[in-house]
Amino acid sequence: MAQKPSIPKGTRDFSPNEVVRRNYIMDAIRGSFTSYGFQPIETPSFENSETLMGKYGEEGDRLIFKILNSGDYLRKVDEGLYAEKDSGKITSKISEKALRYDLTVPFARYVVQHQNDITFPFKRYQIQPVWRADRPQKGRFREFYQCDADVVGSTSLWQEVELVQLYDDVFSQLKLDGVTIKMNNRKILSGIAEVIGEEDKLIDFTVALDKLDKIGEEGVKTEMLSKGISETAINKVQPLFEASGSAEEKLTMLSGLLATSKTGMTGIGELKFIVDTISQLGLKTASLEVDVTLARGLNYYTGAIFEVAGPKGVAMGSIGGGGRYDDLTGIFGLRDVSGVGISFGLDRIYLVIEELGLFPDTVSATTQVLFMNFGETEALYAMKAINELRAQGISAELYPDATKFKKQMNYANKRAIPFVVLAGDEEMEVGNYTLKNMENGTQETHSLESLLVAVT
Amino acid sequence: MAQKPSIPKGTRDFSPNEVVRRNYIMDAIRGSFTSYGFQPIETPSFENSETLMGKYGEEGDRLIFKILNSGDYLRKVDEGLYAEKDSGKITSKISEKALRYDLTVPFARYVVQHQNDITFPFKRYQIQPVWRADRPQKGRFREFYQCDADVVGSTSLWQEVELVQLYDDVFSQLKLDGVTIKMNNRKILSGIAEVIGEEDKLIDFTVALDKLDKIGEEGVKTEMLSKGISETAINKVQPLFEASGSAEEKLTMLSGLLATSKTGMTGIGELKFIVDTISQLGLKTASLEVDVTLARGLNYYTGAIFEVAGPKGVAMGSIGGGGRYDDLTGIFGLRDVSGVGISFGLDRIYLVIEELGLFPDTVSATTQVLFMNFGETEALYAMKAINELRAQGISAELYPDATKFKKQMNYANKRAIPFVVLAGDEEMEVGNYTLKNMENGTQETHSLESLLVAVT
Repeated sequence: MAQKPSIPKGTRDFSPNEVVRRNYIMDAIRGSFTSYGFQPIETPSFENSETLMGKYGEEGDRLIFKILNSGDYLRKVDEGLYAEKDSGKITSKISEKALRYDLTVPFARYVVQHQNDITFPFKRYQIQPVWRADRPQKGRFREFYQCDADVVGSTSLWQEVELVQLYDDVFSQLKLDGVTIKMNNRKILSGIAEVIGEEDKLIDFTVALDKLDKIGEEGVKTEMLSKGISETAINKVQPLFEASGSAEEKLTMLSGLLATSKTGMTGIGELKFIVDTISQLGLKTASLEVDVTLARGLNYYTGAIFEVAGPKGVAMGSIGGGGRYDDLTGIFGLRDVSGVGISFGLDRIYLVIEELGLFPDTVSATTQVLFMNFGETEALYAMKAINELRAQGISAELYPDATKFKKQMNYANKRAIPFVVLAGDEEMEVGNYTLKNMENGTQETHSLESLLVAVT
Repeated sequence: MAQKPSIPKGTRDFSPNEVVRRNYIMDAIRGSFTSYGFQPIETPSFENSETLMGKYGEEGDRLIFKILNSGDYLRKVDEGLYAEKDSGKITSKISEKALRYDLTVPFARYVVQHQNDITFPFKRYQIQPVWRADRPQKGRFREFYQCDADVVGSTSLWQEVELVQLYDDVFSQLKLDGVTIKMNNRKILSGIAEVIGEEDKLIDFTVALDKLDKIGEEGVKTEMLSKGISETAINKVQPLFEASGSAEEKLTMLSGLLATSKTGMTGIGELKFIVDTISQLGLKTASLEVDVTLARGLNYYTGAIFEVAGPKGVAMGSIGGGGRYDDLTGIFGLRDVSGVGISFGLDRIYLVIEELGLFPDTVSATTQVLFMNFGETEALYAMKAINELRAQGISAELYPDATKFKKQMNYANKRAIPFVVLAGDEEMEVGNYTLKNMENGTQETHSLESLLVAVT
């Protein structure tokens, strides 16, 4: 192979520093998931195709990566079908497995498959990659991690309260202060469609309303009209366009608007419980906001809807989202299991932290201490100290070859190793080590004991 | 979907306890990798097919999972070829990507692709799943993790010394005392073939010798004869069959046997340096053994060969292995980059630790403290304490619904939660919490402060 190798478009190699920084974020998420009582599960990278197909709509089916059957896979395709040469029809004959597209459907499958071993309510988290044959573009990849926490088997609104706290916890820990946790409720959206007499246009209505940020009030109204929503109806929801102020004020506005809708008032009641409870418990650095334009995968959610926006001043889409879905496991035959969950957008969180310069200096893939190699005897002497350092959890290494001093120092510089230890005849005679601080260039003589302290 | 869903054969769902136990092992491995100065990288789950195909032999090519191209993938297959209906010929036309088969080839690809950004010698580790379309059987899966550490860009034998220490470090940390790190050297095997005049039968010779454990001396000799190795030749290596005693004794025996082979003597010298250095540095709980029958993927390794056997009394194949390969990146056009690496067998290590009952009790997916839910006001009171516990890193949760006491206690019991907190009117009035130890059934009254201590 003469040409330089490459990787498939939409995928990424992660360098040591990238891996360490990604792990820093995932560790924070994992830590909070654990302290909130969520339990980790892992599912296979590929599922039987029938588990995934048909769960994400037609577009989703197209974007699922299919795995070719092994062996002489064409043998099983009958001649008539083969002659048609129709990719769409042949796929299911030559491919029985597919890479997972998200973590939600595999989770639903897991719950149904293992229902007899699970204690409900089941709080699970899952941090694994997913794959989508999407057209790659800036910030959109064909392989990316999802970090999901869901509770199934309880309709309690305390879950929603906890999930708001969880978002606050993780982002505060990552020093990502000032994120906004936006909430809405599917029942409020249904209520609005109901009171304006446009229940059959719920989707069109919410899709348009969702664009308020981008296309403004007039734009939204024009779109609504173009979808056949009447001017009378639009006038009725005028207060939505003027919604402002605190969560409490918005809920009061909605209570006036939706007074005649039972569904709408239920949604308001749910949201009010969450807002009130959070205001009593307090948040560390995030703020909770009611956003009546928030829709997200509307067909999916049945109650609460969450979305997290990054700190103000950072141009980035949502860095998290989620909601309640009343029938997650119904697709696999287990009815009436309500679930609620949230997801963290690892790639975007990474970009925000990077843009704001919030990765701590200690989050680095470099080695703390490099020992120069001056020959076999010296290396053995160094190795004894290295063993002590490692036992204390300090990363240390011996330069593998007794090459030129300059080459070894270059290595330390290039890898940004903060400490270099030199130990030759002189040091060995008295049992000392010379420690060079690579940042300020100072040199000190240390015993093994004081060396352990000096490099920490 | 009426029938219960399932997963593809050879794949696994991991329950919370399994994930936590697997992470316990991976964290130990990762921690040692880091303290030894290895840096993590991650590569995409799928590579361009040309990166993988032809790198693992014909059998390997067959076992690589191929991913079907998206869209109308058959359109690009020309009619003549299509008419042949030959799976083998069509695969490369309808599939351009494949799931990685191991971590070594992607690592070689990474090194070549990013050679200008890498500081050599490059010590990398990688812990990621790999996929093989092997026939599933007990202990053999189609998706499994590999945990690899490799150094490229240095021929120094200190690397081999460090890798022996690394094995010792990880297994000692996991309390897996008494593992045996077996070592051999490809040059010793070449030397043996040379001195008995059967250089062209090196592979047959070592494959037979490798079976000494299983089929005994007579079996090995019979196999060698059947492969056309002369009786004279076999008699010359009689000392190999009688090899016993310490590493030093075996090396002395080999020095006698291979005195006329330059290659053989070089191999002995290399192994002797490692054995001598390790004996000076000492190992924590493992022992290092010279095993002249050890071959492992012989075509691959050019120097040191490693294999780790579990503690005596546990029937399990090797739980780790590796070796030195002089031309890892040559397959991608970058010549003369020597590498040496080792791998940990996660699944087998898991089984050994489980069999020996060595998973610590603290390695569990359960929550430490469950707060009973007696209603809205009580739950809010509980939540304030829960927040404090979580801030201290103690996992805690509120039972989400104010249901029957018995149902909530059942949940705690089923999940083996060690502590349950009850807080109703009485406790709220004085600001206390009643703590029930679920193991011994005792109940104590605590302030929030003393509660934090009591559940740790």
